[in-house]
Amino acid sequence: MSGLAPDTTAWFRSTWRDLAPVGRASGGGYQRLAWSEPDLQLREWFAHQAQARGLDLVEDRAGNQWAWWGDPDAAGPGVVSGSHLDSVPGGGAFDGPLGVVSAFAAFDELRARGVRPRRPFAVACFTEEEGGRFGVACAGSRLLTGALTPERALGLRDGDGTSLAEALTAAGRRTDTLGPDPQALARVGAFVELHVEQGRGLVHQGVPVGVGREIWPHGRWRVELRGRGDHAGTTPLADRDDAVLAAAVFVQRVREAAERVGALATVGRLVVEPNGVNAIASQVTAWLDVRAQDEARVHEVLALLDSYAPAVESWTSATVLDADLADRVSAAVVDALGGPVPSLATGAGHDSGILAAAGVPTAMLFVRNPTGISHDPAEDADEADCLAGVEALTATLTRLLGASG
Amino acid sequence: MSGLAPDTTAWFRSTWRDLAPVGRASGGGYQRLAWSEPDLQLREWFAHQAQARGLDLVEDRAGNQWAWWGDPDAAGPGVVSGSHLDSVPGGGAFDGPLGVVSAFAAFDELRARGVRPRRPFAVACFTEEEGGRFGVACAGSRLLTGALTPERALGLRDGDGTSLAEALTAAGRRTDTLGPDPQALARVGAFVELHVEQGRGLVHQGVPVGVGREIWPHGRWRVELRGRGDHAGTTPLADRDDAVLAAAVFVQRVREAAERVGALATVGRLVVEPNGVNAIASQVTAWLDVRAQDEARVHEVLALLDSYAPAVESWTSATVLDADLADRVSAAVVDALGGPVPSLATGAGHDSGILAAAGVPTAMLFVRNPTGISHDPAEDADEADCLAGVEALTATLTRLLGASG
Repeated sequence: MSGLAPDTTAWFRSTWRDLAPVGRASGGGYQRLAWSEPDLQLREWFAHQAQARGLDLVEDRAGNQWAWWGDPDAAGPGVVSGSHLDSVPGGGAFDGPLGVVSAFAAFDELRARGVRPRRPFAVACFTEEEGGRFGVACAGSRLLTGALTPERALGLRDGDGTSLAEALTAAGRRTDTLGPDPQALARVGAFVELHVEQGRGLVHQGVPVGVGREIWPHGRWRVELRGRGDHAGTTPLADRDDAVLAAAVFVQRVREAAERVGALATVGRLVVEPNGVNAIASQVTAWLDVRAQDEARVHEVLALLDSYAPAVESWTSATVLDADLADRVSAAVVDALGGPVPSLATGAGHDSGILAAAGVPTAMLFVRNPTGISHDPAEDADEADCLAGVEALTATLTRLLGASG
Repeated sequence: MSGLAPDTTAWFRSTWRDLAPVGRASGGGYQRLAWSEPDLQLREWFAHQAQARGLDLVEDRAGNQWAWWGDPDAAGPGVVSGSHLDSVPGGGAFDGPLGVVSAFAAFDELRARGVRPRRPFAVACFTEEEGGRFGVACAGSRLLTGALTPERALGLRDGDGTSLAEALTAAGRRTDTLGPDPQALARVGAFVELHVEQGRGLVHQGVPVGVGREIWPHGRWRVELRGRGDHAGTTPLADRDDAVLAAAVFVQRVREAAERVGALATVGRLVVEPNGVNAIASQVTAWLDVRAQDEARVHEVLALLDSYAPAVESWTSATVLDADLADRVSAAVVDALGGPVPSLATGAGHDSGILAAAGVPTAMLFVRNPTGISHDPAEDADEADCLAGVEALTATLTRLLGASG
């Protein structure tokens, strides 16, 4: 085991401390929604890290940030590592930032070790990976690859009714150039995303780092449950058409369908109209998230809920990540940390899945999460495991950058 | 039947047209929440109506508005009619405003008929009757009578986290003088509230106006359903503690309890945390509204939901309105419109119930609602029925003001 340079470890620690307060709400959860004040602060942090290392900072037409070491347009496509800095509402500290911070730390380690890369390298930060503000997950990478059109993206609205177009304008960004960026995408010869595990697979196997080989198919749907608004104090039970009651039944049907099929299905977001204590609800909008190990199961869940006419909001097919790349990553991790290195499948969507679907060879590294919990303040990773992740990533990048471009 | 003066009818019509756009949302429902912009506009409208008629405008320590004809401090307690101008979120046009506008119209009619009152008269407008913003129904009349303490009131927060103290300050009101106002209350010798019916009792009986004699006991409770926040894509169903699922069960238990007991129980307001599409909810706050023809039934519903530990937010005992006053009101309505005049009990709370509980002789007049729907844009009343309501109120006030004080 090689061990990291003391400066790399020190930078990782102090950076984690620096980022801890950004967008942290009173309950301990993070509120780092795309293009909000904390997100803009984190974008500034990214730009500062790039500049401090002499990397070339690029913001692509989709709003994603890249910090390039070497010129990918002149020297052929490069190797990229990174993740995202936004969070779900009330999210944890690791989902996203761990991948970006680890990529900068791995870069520092490469330089500390005097690695002379034969290909350009970049740290990347994708915009609105969580869809926590405008509802479409991996919006930045989907815009980049063309999987999300700028027309649809600009019209998306957050819970306060603010459109993405308005949020971009408020953040000083142009809206007329938003869209796919084939040039930025062509620079990516391979993408490695390090991420906190969102489950306890590595805990059960007793190892700090694993390699992701597969992302489950998953999608989001919107269901409108309509009732009739009425006074809670004067309308007999038999005369009621109560949208909250309809939503309660729907939530239970979703759970039953998931159990029957052997899939994951969740209603995590509800918007009640008018949401008054003494008003029978006239409408509830419910969002449905469904994932499974194969697409047939996802379709089966949807078929069981067909009478609710779910409207698709996003869909990502099953993604088998690049097997050759995964083998090379596994070998590098074994070199760095010793074996065994478990292979993992994940039900969570990631920008790496979007890039893989667009033809970019992609791999994932997962770092052990003692609670297994994610999208919640209880999300966790031991510092020693995070540093093992940086080591594994450094070994991976050394191997990938040393190969001919 | 006497018929209204043409000027009274014309003023009623044009006023109803003038008020129609204030606080109207795109879906047709009204958003006239206490101390919000539309509410402040309506307060200004009230002040202007008082001034245009040469009435003395008073805002009491609880924020309620009074327009006095004659001096109640010198000439003994007076007769008051009115209601409120705020709405539930997405409410109808009639609940509240019909009572205030009708009181001004009845005053105009009294003057047009040359009635010389032996007691002072006032039109009143109570603040935040619906509790649509800060959650406590009849907040203005409760503050006035001392049923709600200023300490508790000032700390109430709306859905955006703004406290009543902050809202009052923003509206240019003092917070240090907020509280019970025995002097303002002592001026009220009798209170008659005209209100749109929130049901179809008068439709079934085929008459435009009825007299309210009883207000059901009712209360509001808050229930916290706690779960564990987690990632919707990676947490096995068996490991979940999903607060939305718990809320779905709760909503159904509430309905079952109401059916079993023969009461009205409603969950109209839900707040989900973090309310993200791909996040299993960590907490849902649900508000419960329960009413019944007697208090025993309300307690029975609560007992069935005891395991949820509902926290009381407001409670109003059964209110039997003043029987003598109701008899006099009924006789006046028969004089004005002919018989029969049905007596009604209502499940809805009203400021008249709060004043009655504080010892003020109180009566209610209800105007027929063809849909029976309330707290929704479908709430309705024919103009002819509204004008019959003004006639009934005029006859009532003539009788009450002509009696010795």
